Amino acid sequence: MVVDLTKKLDKIFHERARLGVMSILIASAEGVSFSELAKKLELTRGNLSVHIRVLEDNGYVESKKEFVDRKPRTTFRVTKSGRKAFEEYLKLLEQIVKSVGK
Amino acid sequence: MVVDLTKKLDKIFHERARLGVMSILIASAEGVSFSELAKKLELTRGNLSVHIRVLEDNGYVESKKEFVDRKPRTTFRVTKSGRKAFEEYLKLLEQIVKSVGK
Repeated sequence: MVVDLTKKLDKIFHERARLGVMSILIASAEGVSFSELAKKLELTRGNLSVHIRVLEDNGYVESKKEFVDRKPRTTFRVTKSGRKAFEEYLKLLEQIVKSVGK
Repeated sequence: MVVDLTKKLDKIFHERARLGVMSILIASAEGVSFSELAKKLELTRGNLSVHIRVLEDNGYVESKKEFVDRKPRTTFRVTKSGRKAFEEYLKLLEQIVKSVGK
């Protein structure tokens, strides 16, 4: 039943901003900077921080701090388990869309 | 770009419980009672009320009160605009899944 599928949806990913973050990160092998994420997602730094934190706390995203032109830059990338969990989430979404659309 | 699609996702539908409510209601022409919804979704009455209210306030769901065996029963069904908006939401989800999965 469709409703049983919706219950399984990963709470962490099933949020617009975090779905946006994951969509951007999953496509990038080398990682994406905090500023770039904020710009692409049109989120304030504060708001983005909260969502990134949730993803990091769940081990789906990891960060790297470095200095570029003497300025600190934080880059984020998807972890292996993040990629796996997100793929499962997308599969589930696909099943839901198909089942409801019947 | 995928992220532009995620921004368009209907906030009202993009929540697990409400996605569950809509999945159940969309499949029923005659409507579904509050108790049945709560049971299928495994939600408390209080929690379900909140989500139904959001859907009603947005004109996506309508309710009907009647007496069955002298007991009051509230039945919910999807409105025409609710069906349309939900179909758009599903289309968008499908596009996101396809774009991210590439």
